[in-house]
Amino acid sequence: MPTAIYAGSFDPPTLGHQELIRRASSLFSMVIVAVGINSDKSNLFALEERMQMLREISSELRNVEVTQFDGLLVDFARLRGATILIRGLRVVSDFEHEFQMSLTNRTLAPEIETAFLMATAEHMFVSSSIVKEVARLGGDVSKLVPPAVADRLKAKFKHG
Amino acid sequence: MPTAIYAGSFDPPTLGHQELIRRASSLFSMVIVAVGINSDKSNLFALEERMQMLREISSELRNVEVTQFDGLLVDFARLRGATILIRGLRVVSDFEHEFQMSLTNRTLAPEIETAFLMATAEHMFVSSSIVKEVARLGGDVSKLVPPAVADRLKAKFKHG
Amino acid sequence: MPTAIYAGSFDPPTLGHQELIRRASSLFSMVIVAVGINSDKSNLFALEERMQMLREISSELRNVEVTQFDGLLVDFARLRGATILIRGLRVVSDFEHEFQMSLTNRTLAPEIETAFLMATAEHMFVSSSIVKEVARLGGDVSKLVPPAVADRLKAKFKHG
Amino acid sequence: MPTAIYAGSFDPPTLGHQELIRRASSLFSMVIVAVGINSDKSNLFALEERMQMLREISSELRNVEVTQFDGLLVDFARLRGATILIRGLRVVSDFEHEFQMSLTNRTLAPEIETAFLMATAEHMFVSSSIVKEVARLGGDVSKLVPPAVADRLKAKFKHG
Amino acid sequence: MPTAIYAGSFDPPTLGHQELIRRASSLFSMVIVAVGINSDKSNLFALEERMQMLREISSELRNVEVTQFDGLLVDFARLRGATILIRGLRVVSDFEHEFQMSLTNRTLAPEIETAFLMATAEHMFVSSSIVKEVARLGGDVSKLVPPAVADRLKAKFKHG
Amino acid sequence: MPTAIYAGSFDPPTLGHQELIRRASSLFSMVIVAVGINSDKSNLFALEERMQMLREISSELRNVEVTQFDGLLVDFARLRGATILIRGLRVVSDFEHEFQMSLTNRTLAPEIETAFLMATAEHMFVSSSIVKEVARLGGDVSKLVPPAVADRLKAKFKHG
Repeated sequence: MPTAIYAGSFDPPTLGHQELIRRASSLFSMVIVAVGINSDKSNLFALEERMQMLREISSELRNVEVTQFDGLLVDFARLRGATILIRGLRVVSDFEHEFQMSLTNRTLAPEIETAFLMATAEHMFVSSSIVKEVARLGGDVSKLVPPAVADRLKAKFKHG
Repeated sequence: MPTAIYAGSFDPPTLGHQELIRRASSLFSMVIVAVGINSDKSNLFALEERMQMLREISSELRNVEVTQFDGLLVDFARLRGATILIRGLRVVSDFEHEFQMSLTNRTLAPEIETAFLMATAEHMFVSSSIVKEVARLGGDVSKLVPPAVADRLKAKFKHG
Repeated sequence: MPTAIYAGSFDPPTLGHQELIRRASSLFSMVIVAVGINSDKSNLFALEERMQMLREISSELRNVEVTQFDGLLVDFARLRGATILIRGLRVVSDFEHEFQMSLTNRTLAPEIETAFLMATAEHMFVSSSIVKEVARLGGDVSKLVPPAVADRLKAKFKHG
Repeated sequence: MPTAIYAGSFDPPTLGHQELIRRASSLFSMVIVAVGINSDKSNLFALEERMQMLREISSELRNVEVTQFDGLLVDFARLRGATILIRGLRVVSDFEHEFQMSLTNRTLAPEIETAFLMATAEHMFVSSSIVKEVARLGGDVSKLVPPAVADRLKAKFKHG
Repeated sequence: MPTAIYAGSFDPPTLGHQELIRRASSLFSMVIVAVGINSDKSNLFALEERMQMLREISSELRNVEVTQFDGLLVDFARLRGATILIRGLRVVSDFEHEFQMSLTNRTLAPEIETAFLMATAEHMFVSSSIVKEVARLGGDVSKLVPPAVADRLKAKFKHG
Repeated sequence: MPTAIYAGSFDPPTLGHQELIRRASSLFSMVIVAVGINSDKSNLFALEERMQMLREISSELRNVEVTQFDGLLVDFARLRGATILIRGLRVVSDFEHEFQMSLTNRTLAPEIETAFLMATAEHMFVSSSIVKEVARLGGDVSKLVPPAVADRLKAKFKHG
């Protein structure tokens, strides 16, 4: 039974991420949610905080593990014996970069599959960066992120 | 362990289809390759012939079943206890219609998942309609379809 | 105060069409819903029936008129003194043809504006052709079209 | 009669922006051109200078007001009683981000409409960033921006 | 010095086609404009008439030859010693099919190159099918096709 | 006989770049590979090093010259008497910016043509930025870049 990896920066996790984790957990025997350690990128939430939020929003799913990874995603997948990489399929936004990365992963590790799952229509346009933009400007993000994330975003931008 | 359905008209099956069947068979416990009976569409190959070709090109895969279906795909999936619909992700061609159909399937049967798998780069642009166009004009399709299909195409267009 | 035209074949009208008519009616002083008489295209519903359905689903909107038109849309717009053509903006489907037609209309009648309105996310993927495909195969279209249209579709495909 | 808002960073305004303001002014009773105060983004022109240029290029249009706004665009729209957000529809460039932002605005303020207007073909590919790139490299921008903007760009990059 | 082929159905030739022929003729030593004999497709203009129109609109270009071809385009290219296939690059419309066909041609004849040339912005949205649609509905096509083609379209649809 | 320019930042050159240079050299009498001096962009490899790599990977092609340029590309083209700008056509990635830049170049210098050539399918998804991302994370880039480039990348990231 295959193990799947759902990797990303999750800065912060959105309702779209939460939904995808739930979907993946019903399809595969084990789902590893892997937060990338990318020193180049300045994140709003610390690595530990992002992992904590992911654990909270997936706490009811038995076969989901939240962890971090460094280096190439395909190397991490091999290390963990995972054979599937899960990606969310969104019409707009960063699809092209994901697609390109997936094809490069194929070149690097032909035995690892990438499966794109679709979010529901109402989550198809939610991204972490839009969420941060709205929260920074004082907007209500309760329809875009899980409650636990909304609270943390509010706290972050309180004195902004 | 989930059962997946890979549906299409497969008129005829291409190397891209063959590859996707192989990939799906390594990810899921059971893969049902389902040829749609669509009375509206005029096909080059008869339903039986398409199923025969699909059986030949997947004969080495134990967990693959080739069959036909009528009516809505999601109804067929429910009937067979399948929870995943497999689609090939191609950059160009009929992606938009597939995407739209997938979202409609979501509305009709929220419990059934659609997973898009990527073909390798060299198969990403092969489609049944291009194959037929090339074969009709006398071109060599041996790099686009499995040998068994190439032979049948040659026979079809011999007296064309 | 500008008059807007929302033209299409509406074969049949969907929830997306209904929503767009409602939106347009709140933006413009007068909205003419114009069903094109296109002899080339074989429609499921007769012209009169499509106009009847459109009247039913917009009966509560005072400033909406349902009518038919022949010939070029921009000529009809000039005849009626309309200065805006309304189009639904959908991510997928026939967007490209609409876009091309809009640019051609610009060439033919520079004084007439085209305004694209967005459907809500859940209607963004609904099209008349998908609706017909689902109904023909016996699927439930109640989440895709208004009740009055759903009943007529059921009647159409009863003996299918 | 609805009031429309056309928001952006306008750094600097292009011929495409100018054209869109003119179009919007003929469609709506009042058009507010709103320059966003975005502290995150480093602009070439100061806020005041951008507003000055916008006033110059729309001076002949009676129902256009140029102003600035802070925070969420939909909050500003509510404050001003505007019910329509105007966006330019361009084939290429930043369309996807605009689309995503528009869908997010829909979630935040369902009563506010977004209308996309098309630029003419020759302006469809002009963006503020391309204009700055050309001007920085010493190219002639007179076919891309209004004369008043061209002069200011020349002055900016004189000692570059 | 390479010979280029610009193939299509040209039913009828548009201003975009005319412009592309002119551009290609300045880049390559010889340009063969090749009208495909496609028995499957019902054309408005007879093959001879399309070739006649192409000859008229390229009569001033010394290194352009108008001819017909049957079978695979790459076979025709080999027969004529051409090493480049010219395609018009348009943002919208049938780009995807062209792209797919080009990649298939690459598979069939790796030594033959495909070069995409861009039309000017105002011709980027003109297609033969839009032209026919406008002409059929009685619209003015004089900004979309060369004069000789406009006259013939008018004659065709006179009694329509 | 026309001279073509293939410009870029080539940071570093990939197998896709190498292939395109080879293709262009067989189509045009002279190909100038021009590395842009863009002070705004922080590159991994110094200008001299990038030119050196380009010379190494095109050393067998007689009619290829590697050089640098400053300012507008079209000004450089005029200076060198080149009438064609070569671009690689990739399905994904930065296509839109290239397209926009090409249309702007058309405005600035109508007499200079842009020709898009297609990479082969397996190189269509390779970009300099993906290559750097993979190399930085310790991945094997030998299928993405020429050997000489792979060695330099390894050296760069040795102590990373």
